[in-house]
Amino acid sequence: CIFSMFSFKVTMDDFELACKGLYRALTIREKYMRLAFQRYPSTTSHFLRKIEGEVWKPEHQVQPVFTPPPAAGEDPLDAKSLPPNLGYVARMRDGVIYVYKDSAAADKHEPLPLPTPDLTTFIDDMNFLIALIAQGPTKTYTHRRLKFLRSKFNVHEMLNEMEELKELKNNPHRDFYNCRKVDTHIHAAACMNQKHLLRFIKKSYRVDADRVVYSAKGKEMTLKEVFASLKMHPYDLTVDSLDVHAGRQTFQRFDKFNAKYNPVGASELRDLYLKTENHISGEYFATIIKEVASDLEDARYQYAEPRLSIYGCNPNEWTKLSGWFIKHRVYSPNLMWMIQVPRIYDIFRGRNFVPHFGKMLENIFLPVFQATIDPHSNPELSLFLKHVTGFDSVDDESKHSGHMFSTKSPKPEKWDIVKNPSYTYYIYYMYANIAILNQLRKERGMNTFQFRPHCGEAGAVTHLLACFMTADNISHGLNLKKSPVLQYLYFLTQIPIAMSPLSNNSLFLEYNKNPLLEFHQKGLMVSLSTDDPMQFHYTKVRSDWEPLMEEYAIAAQVFKLSTCDMCEIARNSVLQSGLSHENKVHFLGQHYLKEGPEGNDIRKTNVAQIRMAYRYETLCYELNLIQDGCENGINSSPRGQLV
Amino acid sequence: CIFSMFSFKVTMDDFELACKGLYRALTIREKYMRLAFQRYPSTTSHFLRKIEGEVWKPEHQVQPVFTPPPAAGEDPLDAKSLPPNLGYVARMRDGVIYVYKDSAAADKHEPLPLPTPDLTTFIDDMNFLIALIAQGPTKTYTHRRLKFLRSKFNVHEMLNEMEELKELKNNPHRDFYNCRKVDTHIHAAACMNQKHLLRFIKKSYRVDADRVVYSAKGKEMTLKEVFASLKMHPYDLTVDSLDVHAGRQTFQRFDKFNAKYNPVGASELRDLYLKTENHISGEYFATIIKEVASDLEDARYQYAEPRLSIYGCNPNEWTKLSGWFIKHRVYSPNLMWMIQVPRIYDIFRGRNFVPHFGKMLENIFLPVFQATIDPHSNPELSLFLKHVTGFDSVDDESKHSGHMFSTKSPKPEKWDIVKNPSYTYYIYYMYANIAILNQLRKERGMNTFQFRPHCGEAGAVTHLLACFMTADNISHGLNLKKSPVLQYLYFLTQIPIAMSPLSNNSLFLEYNKNPLLEFHQKGLMVSLSTDDPMQFHYTKVRSDWEPLMEEYAIAAQVFKLSTCDMCEIARNSVLQSGLSHENKVHFLGQHYLKEGPEGNDIRKTNVAQIRMAYRYETLCYELNLIQDGCENGINSSPRGQLV
Repeated sequence: CIFSMFSFKVTMDDFELACKGLYRALTIREKYMRLAFQRYPSTTSHFLRKIEGEVWKPEHQVQPVFTPPPAAGEDPLDAKSLPPNLGYVARMRDGVIYVYKDSAAADKHEPLPLPTPDLTTFIDDMNFLIALIAQGPTKTYTHRRLKFLRSKFNVHEMLNEMEELKELKNNPHRDFYNCRKVDTHIHAAACMNQKHLLRFIKKSYRVDADRVVYSAKGKEMTLKEVFASLKMHPYDLTVDSLDVHAGRQTFQRFDKFNAKYNPVGASELRDLYLKTENHISGEYFATIIKEVASDLEDARYQYAEPRLSIYGCNPNEWTKLSGWFIKHRVYSPNLMWMIQVPRIYDIFRGRNFVPHFGKMLENIFLPVFQATIDPHSNPELSLFLKHVTGFDSVDDESKHSGHMFSTKSPKPEKWDIVKNPSYTYYIYYMYANIAILNQLRKERGMNTFQFRPHCGEAGAVTHLLACFMTADNISHGLNLKKSPVLQYLYFLTQIPIAMSPLSNNSLFLEYNKNPLLEFHQKGLMVSLSTDDPMQFHYTKVRSDWEPLMEEYAIAAQVFKLSTCDMCEIARNSVLQSGLSHENKVHFLGQHYLKEGPEGNDIRKTNVAQIRMAYRYETLCYELNLIQDGCENGINSSPRGQLV
Repeated sequence: CIFSMFSFKVTMDDFELACKGLYRALTIREKYMRLAFQRYPSTTSHFLRKIEGEVWKPEHQVQPVFTPPPAAGEDPLDAKSLPPNLGYVARMRDGVIYVYKDSAAADKHEPLPLPTPDLTTFIDDMNFLIALIAQGPTKTYTHRRLKFLRSKFNVHEMLNEMEELKELKNNPHRDFYNCRKVDTHIHAAACMNQKHLLRFIKKSYRVDADRVVYSAKGKEMTLKEVFASLKMHPYDLTVDSLDVHAGRQTFQRFDKFNAKYNPVGASELRDLYLKTENHISGEYFATIIKEVASDLEDARYQYAEPRLSIYGCNPNEWTKLSGWFIKHRVYSPNLMWMIQVPRIYDIFRGRNFVPHFGKMLENIFLPVFQATIDPHSNPELSLFLKHVTGFDSVDDESKHSGHMFSTKSPKPEKWDIVKNPSYTYYIYYMYANIAILNQLRKERGMNTFQFRPHCGEAGAVTHLLACFMTADNISHGLNLKKSPVLQYLYFLTQIPIAMSPLSNNSLFLEYNKNPLLEFHQKGLMVSLSTDDPMQFHYTKVRSDWEPLMEEYAIAAQVFKLSTCDMCEIARNSVLQSGLSHENKVHFLGQHYLKEGPEGNDIRKTNVAQIRMAYRYETLCYELNLIQDGCENGINSSPRGQLV
């Protein structure tokens, strides 16, 4: 037996210790996912119930709710169907917004019975996981299992590659080009490529030179005057002078990279072309995004999940952003919107924009609670929220805060120093508010929000730990390389990871060192995304969303991915995304929620059933081992001798 | 001085020996280039004359002749302007075609005084070079110089990168997207990508199902019947079932790769869609190529040099090929045609298609000589030849012939065994015939042909030696890695190398091990090309010739090329190509034939003058060293102490 080597290396005690720790870790994530209507694999839940001597029931499984596509003739931005006012009161307490029947209940802090995460329990769970990822036997065990998973995939490939290919060849109508792909991680302000932005700037100048587009210090300026003040003429602009593309200068320099958002290094142009709030009400930015959307609609098989920013600097941001969205009708069936919240409290506090961290959280979440309770109080925001599928948390992870989250950490309303709180602190409070918000929205039959932070691009591995507890899925995940325990847990819980190797190549990690291939081989659920086409991609965006194809093409070339690999990654991207249930049925097949081969419809996904069976059996095998370890029944179990 | 380390490592005697050997090697290539109207850098010629105590004169410089673009309103395929019959006689003797005043002169072998290469001299020169590339001191010297060149470029980059970028930013209108690029190595039968071919097959079935398109063994078949006999319906076809894309199965398997030219593994479909000779006179193939050409014309800044095959199996091939070309008007201003000759004499001889190697050469070259002497005897061929810019020699270089070319080798008419002659033997006889042909065509004011073989993709380094002597430029060149002497000589003579790292990645060498970056840094003249988009590329060919952009994008990403690097490579591709003098003036600037910064027009090329100056000074410095070594004046020379 190929596993017998194991019995000499891992003692039974260590094996049990590791399995019990992993079991508890799995239940921790399950709890937080359920609370926030985020996803957790039923396969893994099954095994947890078996370990507990319980029976798994389908109703235990929660699912996020996304707004279905509009019916034929229905206007997705129509305010008529908004539900009535519930009359509830929402109020923040210790950084978390609670919902009360009325203000009297609020004053007494008698919130409605929406299950909420408890900070003390959260810190306990977190501390348990911090200890687990450093625990020797668990590290050894997971390291070995991961190594084994990779070798096992290589063997699978050598044995079954031709069979997989045969399945695909015999699958009519469907190939890699016409299976659905979602760009699962992309920033709206960089979703056009450099050439597109350049063309747009030139076109705007031809049409709008004499239009007043800018005002600074009370002085209004026409587009001509803006360019004159910058001492340039758009006719002379080139991709080089635009200077938004990341080059060798940005490697390991996130600060320089952020400056690349300024065309020609001029923040005026960023304001004018890439912002939703400016003298022209973000018209240019809306038009560019709509051009990108129209290309996606033409290309038919590609979708994207652009991020728009809410900073939490003042409570009107949501009203302005949703006003922009509705005014310019930025809606597209091929775009699912996400809200990104930059972790820059320290900057706002330094400039005295906010008195404490609690105010920032309140600015971010209270308007959403209020629009959920009384949609007609802010119909534009309520409509916009129907098309928002999740929250992202963004910034340079390599900046270290020095703060360690514990029960003794000041509550958000008491966090009034200029120093930024830790990544985990941000993550917990965003998660807690999203969880309650989702309870409320689910109750009202509204769509829920997923929490999908940037995580593990750089910085400490504890970021990945915080997101293991709280996030439906993450972007980047590079640092899973550094923790076998977390990597194995991400595998067991099939947490989707949106990877952007071209972005990493410009910022943090050279292309051929990217762990994408390794993760994919081991069976982690990875998708491919562009992050910032404006900065990182060369091929043209017009016609066919080429930046995403560039991402797939380069991965296929450098990592020598097979068609089956590429289609599996594309399928992962649809699963990871905020596409509606109806769309997922259409793109992946009606049983897509089932796990394993029966959930796969090869006619739609072009993923071989052999591959699906391999993935499913492999996951079950690993879960089985943990079950054995937990049952303390090594000698009686038929699989015991293998370990 | 940073070079002083040198004085301890290379003794003066060794230095002189190496320089004198390199000097002679340089003069050998110069001689063969001049004889065939192929290019040789004037900078290098200058130094050779200095070493000889002579003065370089511009009239020593030869240039190939390409057909200029048609004047406004002129039909490029109009036979009216063909020149008259000269009445000469062309006849093969010892594998080389000679031109005689008349048959009497031919019978006496009194050829016209066209300078021809001499076999004995050629073998002498070859043997000298074989010894040189194995000579210890020369290997050491060139190895060190190449290492130095690479480090020097790195230093240049660190010092001047920002300055180069500044030049480009200040260069209006021009960026990487709108500087001209030529796909310098692409096979016509794979110039469409897989998706394009698939779409074309489906479209043809919708339109032509009942058309008789195929005949085998006297039986005619409609398109419907062809597909029925293959037990398939085009509606079900996908990119996977088409199965023309190279995958992991083709790595190190050139044989398997060649089979990938058969869609669905069926040679019937290759015949029908990718051949010029078939029941429908190659109509489908012509239409596909014209679609590719029309995309290039729309994209404006991209050109390609597709290869069409002449096998030498029978003397009618040229008539058929040119008939196809004229009938379907495959001409495009964005395509420069090349003829590829597969090195498969052994197969033809084995099937008794040809009696000896001489007949194959005759079938390849005699029709061209005859059409050159009397264009009206074959007007279609004569017109086609106006648009042919060169010859390529193709096949799997890793096949070893076991034959060693020497003065004792049988002459082509005596080579009647089934065994294939060596690569060098093929190359010499192709070169010799092209050289005489060019003499004749130049005299008549016709366009000349460049010799541009596939070389150094695999196999022995002697292939690169043969092409150093005979080829204007080559495709691949990977094996220059294995011979520092040849690599240094390719640098000193600036032989253009069309590299295709994506093709190599599927066949011979993993992407990140490709020497493209290293060659570019050292100053070898490299361009990027696609080789076979059908097999290797993912992005769609329609609109904007994306396979070439994929090639540039991946190189830029994996090798972290700067914009200046990319534009330099694009400029190299135009220089390497068979684009007419008029086009090169238009695309590169009126002084493009001058070397160094004065030959560069940044407004057209977007290559920084700092870069051009660096390249020029670096080449001159290396040539200067050789001059010093040859003059035996180490002590008197101001640079002597540096070496």
